[in-house]
Amino acid sequence: AIEWTELDERTVDTARVLAMDAVQKVGNGHPGTAMALAPAAYLLFQRFLRHDPTDPHWVGRDRFVLSPGHTSMTLYTQLFLSGYGLELDDLKAFRVAGSRTPGHPEHGHTAGVETTTGPLGQGIGNAVGMAMAARYERGLFDPQAAPGSSPFDHTIWAIVSDGDLEEGISAEASSLAGHQKLGNLVAVYDDNHISIEGDTQTAFSEDVLARYEAYGWHVQRISPKDSGDIDVQALADALTAAKAETSRPSIIAMRTIIAWPAPDAQNTAKAHGSALGAAEIAATKKVLGFDPERTFEVSDEVLSHARQVIQRGKAARAEWERSFAEWRAADAARAAEFDRVQAGELPNGWKKQLPSFPAGKDVATRKASGDTLKALGAVIPELWGGSADLAESNLTTIDEESSFLPEGNPLKSASPYGRTIHFGIREHAMGSTMNGIALHGNTRVFGGTFLVFADYMRPAVRLAALMKLPVTYVWTHDSIGLGEDGPTHQPVEHLAALRAIPGLSMVRPADANETAVAWRTVLERHTSHPGPVGLALTRQGVPTWDREVFGSAEGTAKGGYVLAEASDGAPKVILIGTGSEVQLAVRAREVLEAEGIATRVVSMPSIEWFNEQDQAYRDQVLPSTVKARVSVEAGIAQGWRELVGDHGQIVSLEHFGASADFQVLFQEFGITAEAVVHAAHKSLRSLEAVNR
Amino acid sequence: AIEWTELDERTVDTARVLAMDAVQKVGNGHPGTAMALAPAAYLLFQRFLRHDPTDPHWVGRDRFVLSPGHTSMTLYTQLFLSGYGLELDDLKAFRVAGSRTPGHPEHGHTAGVETTTGPLGQGIGNAVGMAMAARYERGLFDPQAAPGSSPFDHTIWAIVSDGDLEEGISAEASSLAGHQKLGNLVAVYDDNHISIEGDTQTAFSEDVLARYEAYGWHVQRISPKDSGDIDVQALADALTAAKAETSRPSIIAMRTIIAWPAPDAQNTAKAHGSALGAAEIAATKKVLGFDPERTFEVSDEVLSHARQVIQRGKAARAEWERSFAEWRAADAARAAEFDRVQAGELPNGWKKQLPSFPAGKDVATRKASGDTLKALGAVIPELWGGSADLAESNLTTIDEESSFLPEGNPLKSASPYGRTIHFGIREHAMGSTMNGIALHGNTRVFGGTFLVFADYMRPAVRLAALMKLPVTYVWTHDSIGLGEDGPTHQPVEHLAALRAIPGLSMVRPADANETAVAWRTVLERHTSHPGPVGLALTRQGVPTWDREVFGSAEGTAKGGYVLAEASDGAPKVILIGTGSEVQLAVRAREVLEAEGIATRVVSMPSIEWFNEQDQAYRDQVLPSTVKARVSVEAGIAQGWRELVGDHGQIVSLEHFGASADFQVLFQEFGITAEAVVHAAHKSLRSLEAVNR
Repeated sequence: AIEWTELDERTVDTARVLAMDAVQKVGNGHPGTAMALAPAAYLLFQRFLRHDPTDPHWVGRDRFVLSPGHTSMTLYTQLFLSGYGLELDDLKAFRVAGSRTPGHPEHGHTAGVETTTGPLGQGIGNAVGMAMAARYERGLFDPQAAPGSSPFDHTIWAIVSDGDLEEGISAEASSLAGHQKLGNLVAVYDDNHISIEGDTQTAFSEDVLARYEAYGWHVQRISPKDSGDIDVQALADALTAAKAETSRPSIIAMRTIIAWPAPDAQNTAKAHGSALGAAEIAATKKVLGFDPERTFEVSDEVLSHARQVIQRGKAARAEWERSFAEWRAADAARAAEFDRVQAGELPNGWKKQLPSFPAGKDVATRKASGDTLKALGAVIPELWGGSADLAESNLTTIDEESSFLPEGNPLKSASPYGRTIHFGIREHAMGSTMNGIALHGNTRVFGGTFLVFADYMRPAVRLAALMKLPVTYVWTHDSIGLGEDGPTHQPVEHLAALRAIPGLSMVRPADANETAVAWRTVLERHTSHPGPVGLALTRQGVPTWDREVFGSAEGTAKGGYVLAEASDGAPKVILIGTGSEVQLAVRAREVLEAEGIATRVVSMPSIEWFNEQDQAYRDQVLPSTVKARVSVEAGIAQGWRELVGDHGQIVSLEHFGASADFQVLFQEFGITAEAVVHAAHKSLRSLEAVNR
Repeated sequence: AIEWTELDERTVDTARVLAMDAVQKVGNGHPGTAMALAPAAYLLFQRFLRHDPTDPHWVGRDRFVLSPGHTSMTLYTQLFLSGYGLELDDLKAFRVAGSRTPGHPEHGHTAGVETTTGPLGQGIGNAVGMAMAARYERGLFDPQAAPGSSPFDHTIWAIVSDGDLEEGISAEASSLAGHQKLGNLVAVYDDNHISIEGDTQTAFSEDVLARYEAYGWHVQRISPKDSGDIDVQALADALTAAKAETSRPSIIAMRTIIAWPAPDAQNTAKAHGSALGAAEIAATKKVLGFDPERTFEVSDEVLSHARQVIQRGKAARAEWERSFAEWRAADAARAAEFDRVQAGELPNGWKKQLPSFPAGKDVATRKASGDTLKALGAVIPELWGGSADLAESNLTTIDEESSFLPEGNPLKSASPYGRTIHFGIREHAMGSTMNGIALHGNTRVFGGTFLVFADYMRPAVRLAALMKLPVTYVWTHDSIGLGEDGPTHQPVEHLAALRAIPGLSMVRPADANETAVAWRTVLERHTSHPGPVGLALTRQGVPTWDREVFGSAEGTAKGGYVLAEASDGAPKVILIGTGSEVQLAVRAREVLEAEGIATRVVSMPSIEWFNEQDQAYRDQVLPSTVKARVSVEAGIAQGWRELVGDHGQIVSLEHFGASADFQVLFQEFGITAEAVVHAAHKSLRSLEAVNR
């Protein structure tokens, strides 16, 4: 049994009081779960997490993920009590503009918050990714160490809720975690029988632990005390057993009473998302032996007791530092490699590996991406990733001989430290685990699927953008150009819909060399401009431009550039294309030039990167004086008016695709060079009408 | 045991040969699963489905859903063999432009295709929705009938694959189906151990049946014959047992060998998504006793044998028609009600129930929506729906006393025929089951969540748009106006990203009366313009305009209208707003008019509906001569340039939100009346500069 004093009880109750008071002060928030979970969170932070509150970035730390982000006070109170720098005034400013205690925990905003949570199910997906990353990083830096003996061994702890477990993403991520036998992952399930619409009997009656057993998890259930409070001893035993189980992920179902011990509010749905009200808070304070007249009451004794965790943390840290120093001393090269990866630097000479593609031959940009990944993979060990079961189509297999799969997996390529991730047909978990991987360390992860299925992972993509995580999506089959699979598989609105996400850069290269430069740029931006990037790549072959004749593919790094200048250098019309449609602009330019119309072609692989350039560069590529413009992209027009202006024309696709050969589709849907020529004429006429 | 002759075997093998030949002819597609599943599909179509191939719309039919849509030949061959009007030439035109046999099955395109599948996991979600709809419709029309005795009793059959079951949406939908005890649902799981990246050991090792047992399903497993082929007798026994189990949904795991009996291709990942090649096809035909020199070989004996199902179907139909006629005769009123719903008509006088909101008081549009739903619900019994556990926030509870929950559910409001659906925290399953509900009958279903979580259900929304299904999304908390919950909960890009989906109408009413008219319009369009509609509604109160002073809320039905005319009827500038930002435009207009600038305010709740209006109307609202324009919407600018033009200004939000009081956020992020005034000045100056 663990030692658990009255002072520990008082500290836990202090957290409950703070949660009630903070929500009451601002008038909104979620007090109930923070009250119920206070003992569990305190137990984790004080006795189980290996952490150093004075250094939230310590590489050797355990990670803690609060998947139900709405109960942010569960985390904030522990960050306060542990000494992460959050103080009482921060708790008093809960959910107030500019405070360090926003409604949901925000990574990068509050020290000690390992990931931004709130959208349900994402936290557990992140935790699974962190557990995967911990194993991969161990493989990079210390693969030979005996289990549990490496400075790279640690545990990922998560609290998860009914809502998390109802969301499909948690099913995907948990199935993957079971398959991957992530023994470094421990989840505590807050089984409180309450969701917003009331009793979980409204919608949720499955046997959660049987489900997790089916996924291959180690499962335990603990009962509350007779009072209804969490049985701390039982939980401590279960956490100890879970940590000891290193061959499987663990989940502990813990029955709790929401808003315990509030006399009236406990076990009600209202306590989930509303302040308890002054009377109920006063009554609860009385139950807990707090002064009902005082708010935010934290005794010095409680605080200094709780903050002893700093000393315990420093002791654990010192022990780790010894082990880490030994590890460094044992092999200078791998220590240097570790430092390099930590710093976000790439190996010397890596750019030399970048493939260059000869002009003339048609190459699909997905193929160019696959070649680039393989070439760079040979020299950048921290570059890893895979696909949601479309590796052969996405060409994301960085190493066929090395699959990220656990001990005991029957596949020949299986290795616990393998580089190729098989996410399974689980795009959403792929997105969410990629976020966890990026949050955990500084490896560089990519994940592939068809562009149309970016929809399946969109909530995770949004969170990557919100957290500015440098992850790369390899989204292939990026238009009706995929052909026969038809409208369910053909993205039409996706480029626009993804460009809409603030902070996500979409890149749609026009040929093989733009693709290589795009990948190089992605890797260069990893540290300088962290954030997610989506590569939109063709299934079908596209011309590889002769860069002696056309503008350099280096322009890709600037998002947009002059691919083909007007013959006299003074364009009358500018054609702007992306990806596979750039060839239509090039062909249209030939026709227009033959007609005597000076025509420039701009390749615009990334509107976001182009918009980052200074005004001078942008004016150079798209001079404001040239108002006859045509954009061409096999997707909806939305967004292009911004670039082509009132007199411009947009060659686009305003409806779903169809199942047929791709050349037939481009023809039938009017995404052709002829259409671009026609649009250019129309744009010129529109201008003439005004100037007349 | 069922009767199963050599001719049945030959017919099954004919389906295998057709699948191989069709894929080989076009050069791409998915032959392997269609070969493996041919006995199961044939067994279902010939012996289990109650259907009438000559009338694919027969109300009394069982439904068949092929969740792995890529194996569309599994369905097409049975539609051909059963006599749904698909002929051999159609199979020969597989995946060719304009054919009735596109790459993935498309509802509304090919008779007998009950839903469009391809994006994995959606089919099973649709099937769950169909099973829910069958129960609800029975409740509408024949609630008193003994189990199994009603003409409204039938079975939903589905084939599901590894890919379907790996997707999170299937976890959500299956958990919901178990909770709902959908005894009218039977799924056959094609457990073939192969996915695109190879052996399912790459990513999928969970115990699927144990998982389904945990969901509350009835589970069975059948083994293949020694040859590797499906054991038809065992499957028939399992299907019989599954159908007999009416208190729970059923799943039958069936081990199959992909591409069986192709000598080399069987049990390979390649056989999943590639033509087998001429040599392998010839070898397989030899194994099956077909002429390797011939293609598309269908003997007359086989075809006439298979098409006897039409006679069996007609017999079943005749029996059903008797029962249906009895049902009609027993109660003329309910028969008339059935006819009304089938025809997509609404009850006489329903519009009188539409609430009208007095001017002056601030009302949140979610509140207006909730009031409208309750008012209309009283007279439109086929209007039903709920929320993904946010009913109290979305205000989607159409009847608090009547929850759609099965016999035995402990909640007081529970009724198998209840009107309020508790989807649980499962937005994606909500979207997909709504599609199934709309596909099944002509009830009118709505589902709510926060607008930001539209991302979680986006793939289902896209399919609703592709299939033109009249479902309504109640997406509340539609901007930073939701306040303290912060950036994870605040939609910023969502209006743009949803408007991007072809065929989805987004409607963001500016006040309570626009909301009521929006709901009325949604219901009116159900039959005339079927397709999904997303309502974007505020959390916060917004002014209820005095329609004596402002333009009529009737304009909502046209998507955009003049809310406030310029004082002299000749606007110098037009301010266009949506939803909660319309009040900013109205306030800005007052300032501008006071400055002597004639200003019109246009409320634009739905750009899609506005774009449907004729040019004359659109020119009337937005005269091309008035080029000084400002749009204001608390979301990204993307798309608005189309409406405001080169000289226009866009007041928008180009980054994520923050956790704070909403009024602080609007102020801080510059979404204010002052910003609109400033933008109007800027737009006017821009025009003056040109005209100077």
